[in-house]
Amino acid sequence: MAININKYFREMIKGTVSDLLKSELFLQEVSLKGWVRTFRSNRFIALNDGSTIHNIQCVIDFENTDEETLKRITTGAAIAVKGTLVESQGKGQSVEIQVSEIEILGDSNPEEYPIQPKKHSLEFLRENAHLRVRTNTFSAVMRVRSKLSFAVHKYFQDEGFNYVHTPVITGSDAEGAGEMFKVTSFEANKAPLTEAGDIDYSKDFFGKETNLTVSGQLEAETYAMALGKVYTFGPTFRAENSNTTRHLAEFWMIEPEVAFMDLDGNMDLAEDFIKSVLAYVLEHCQDDLAFLDQRLSQEEKSKPQAERSEMSLLEKLRFITENNFKRVSYTEAIDILRNSKPNKKKKFQFPINEWGADLQSEHERYLVEKHFKCPVILFDYPANIKAFYMRLNEDGKTVRAMDVLFPGIGEIVGGAQREERLDVLKEKMAALGIDEKELWWYLDTRKFGTAVHAGFGLGFERLVQFATGMANIRDVIPFPRTPQNAEF
Amino acid sequence: MAININKYFREMIKGTVSDLLKSELFLQEVSLKGWVRTFRSNRFIALNDGSTIHNIQCVIDFENTDEETLKRITTGAAIAVKGTLVESQGKGQSVEIQVSEIEILGDSNPEEYPIQPKKHSLEFLRENAHLRVRTNTFSAVMRVRSKLSFAVHKYFQDEGFNYVHTPVITGSDAEGAGEMFKVTSFEANKAPLTEAGDIDYSKDFFGKETNLTVSGQLEAETYAMALGKVYTFGPTFRAENSNTTRHLAEFWMIEPEVAFMDLDGNMDLAEDFIKSVLAYVLEHCQDDLAFLDQRLSQEEKSKPQAERSEMSLLEKLRFITENNFKRVSYTEAIDILRNSKPNKKKKFQFPINEWGADLQSEHERYLVEKHFKCPVILFDYPANIKAFYMRLNEDGKTVRAMDVLFPGIGEIVGGAQREERLDVLKEKMAALGIDEKELWWYLDTRKFGTAVHAGFGLGFERLVQFATGMANIRDVIPFPRTPQNAEF
Repeated sequence: MAININKYFREMIKGTVSDLLKSELFLQEVSLKGWVRTFRSNRFIALNDGSTIHNIQCVIDFENTDEETLKRITTGAAIAVKGTLVESQGKGQSVEIQVSEIEILGDSNPEEYPIQPKKHSLEFLRENAHLRVRTNTFSAVMRVRSKLSFAVHKYFQDEGFNYVHTPVITGSDAEGAGEMFKVTSFEANKAPLTEAGDIDYSKDFFGKETNLTVSGQLEAETYAMALGKVYTFGPTFRAENSNTTRHLAEFWMIEPEVAFMDLDGNMDLAEDFIKSVLAYVLEHCQDDLAFLDQRLSQEEKSKPQAERSEMSLLEKLRFITENNFKRVSYTEAIDILRNSKPNKKKKFQFPINEWGADLQSEHERYLVEKHFKCPVILFDYPANIKAFYMRLNEDGKTVRAMDVLFPGIGEIVGGAQREERLDVLKEKMAALGIDEKELWWYLDTRKFGTAVHAGFGLGFERLVQFATGMANIRDVIPFPRTPQNAEF
Repeated sequence: MAININKYFREMIKGTVSDLLKSELFLQEVSLKGWVRTFRSNRFIALNDGSTIHNIQCVIDFENTDEETLKRITTGAAIAVKGTLVESQGKGQSVEIQVSEIEILGDSNPEEYPIQPKKHSLEFLRENAHLRVRTNTFSAVMRVRSKLSFAVHKYFQDEGFNYVHTPVITGSDAEGAGEMFKVTSFEANKAPLTEAGDIDYSKDFFGKETNLTVSGQLEAETYAMALGKVYTFGPTFRAENSNTTRHLAEFWMIEPEVAFMDLDGNMDLAEDFIKSVLAYVLEHCQDDLAFLDQRLSQEEKSKPQAERSEMSLLEKLRFITENNFKRVSYTEAIDILRNSKPNKKKKFQFPINEWGADLQSEHERYLVEKHFKCPVILFDYPANIKAFYMRLNEDGKTVRAMDVLFPGIGEIVGGAQREERLDVLKEKMAALGIDEKELWWYLDTRKFGTAVHAGFGLGFERLVQFATGMANIRDVIPFPRTPQNAEF
């Protein structure tokens, strides 16, 4: 395989570590820049440039290298090497570089550099989120995240969807998906007042009260009713004081929305989409996933036997891509759960007594991991535990909602066929006290050329967690925003 | 060409309008859903489903269709048709559908529907941003926007870049790129105070003052120094009271950042990137661009001769993809401008008198359109008109900055090689009064394994404007946010 000539490096022909490790250009002169991961025996540099989880071994002729330079080859230092690519004698690598020239580009004082060649706690690394991506674990996670993002776009574009950038700043607060952050240009405690003594939002930047969006769905629906198939993929926000391993104040959400598609189509789409994007990373992130699979096995070993996962990371991913998703109505699921062993033996933290109960993660996981042993899509939920815009079934008490349930985490996707009937939608809004004036534009989609349509939402970080096996959601986004934390 | 069987529509095998118009499945039964664009002679429906700029003609057997149904076939109504695909007798289309069954899915009262089959002003359509995408112009613009977004991702992923989601909510306000929006959970005018009487931000959601980001660059740099090649593509914000055709309060920005790359490499990257993404839409959006090209020609005809563009939309796009970008230092450019006819004849609004002047759009356009007649990259700008993080040249007065200049709009890309030397960067920050404590993490990248690196920023909406020929930036983003406007 030829080394790619990287066209915007105006230097000696060079490749990345990834290129060189795959090449067989033995005895060729190569040039390479990267960061030192380790340096041992005054001779062997493990060099990484971020292009792959693997390092390339650079062998120094230490007798002909001045001592001052040798001292500066420390973990984290940026260096440039020139040398000859040769077959490696060492195990675990096919090639190495016999270095003829080395230059220290940027030092890294080992007394001060926080990222040492040892295991750091994830908590410590979170406090150094600007440097943690220099570790094996985080570089692997972030490469997988990048590839997974691309898989999302590729899937929808290949299927004829249009990407819609729905607004982040929103004047509408009627979506009811959770607490919102306020956006303002007013100086704190210096907002002007109206004559009546209220805050005079007409003087704020947008002339009204504005918030950070919790979902692009309602706007996406207006686009689906014109372009047919659309999707969003953008940041969304929750001002909820949830300090858990599953919640972020700022996270990326994927929301497809399709005109003329009903709930069955929506379930087909969700299943096909998830399988496709996970298959994409299984194919394109083999080295990173192999590393993360190993990492997770190690982590699991430190847990008590009973808490260990039955599947490895790669097994879990294949569990999704290779199984059909079982479709089960909420009502059936309640029956199964009510009669289940853990329910009878009072092992559930939240016992299931009657129809109408909101399912918890423990119930969702029981259905997936113990009962069906495959991914599950629950549908037709009680209307009163779901959002106002979901389509009411003929029974008058359930809505055409669906949740996709995964092993280990429970719900990963929530979606619905939307209420397309203007009169029913208005009744629902009135019952919930949602002002029609706030959502006049949303109601217009039902007033003019309304049609059956459906879509779903998927929190991207939950998908990255699933794909990488990281237990804490703060470890799958570059700079997590959580209560009391907006560092960097 | 076979009609794609759309796998998540559980109905009669069906295609989109786009599929059917390209197919030759004559005399086959087809089923289709969409919205009526026009209905004429009680017989010919122009049907659109958003998959293409083109409508498909559906011919009604009006003698065998009840009058009640015929009345409900109005502009904007959603309908389902079944029928036979036949070669069209009409001009401008190859196929049409002889309708055997028609169903009205959603009415559209012509007395109330704002989008009539006539030319609406762009201002009027902006007030109906939830419906304007149902017009030819906006559906074309938004499809091109979607394809262009994908081209951005595809380019960087193919080149080995990692997509990084930099944070939207930021605790750092030292980037100096403009006024910022405040993000808070405090109720207006009810922020708690410290004993000293200051706002007690430790009680706000993030425990500190937070804003909406103006750029992801600084965070992206930390990732480039680990993963090598990264890019951002996300929303950024400016709380500036600019009511122009070129400014939005919320817009999407693309920011690649590459380790071990200098300014020459940066210029290569910018040129290659822009050519690639525009070539992608030229190839994949032919119908939409042909329509927008025509539209722009019509617009131009209404202008006085002197103000008309010399190039059509498609010519402008090919002007970029087919020309080498001319690289000119700021100093050379100042010489050219100082000695130019418009400067001598005092035709510039801002005359160029001396080295150090900040260039305006009129100067940039003169260089591109009149002097060089090709896209231009200016580089090595005076340090004092550029940001603190740009690398100081050996002359001590210029920095390794670059701007890419386009016909019609002037600057489309701004970038730089970054100041990688810790001591020089600290001096710059001190001179500008930027607190090192605010950017401790940014300084860490220079402290540990620093290296030459470079990157640029491109406002995505400017690129969409260029690709679609839309004069007002509010017309290339679904729901524009501008002073006094956050509707929808």
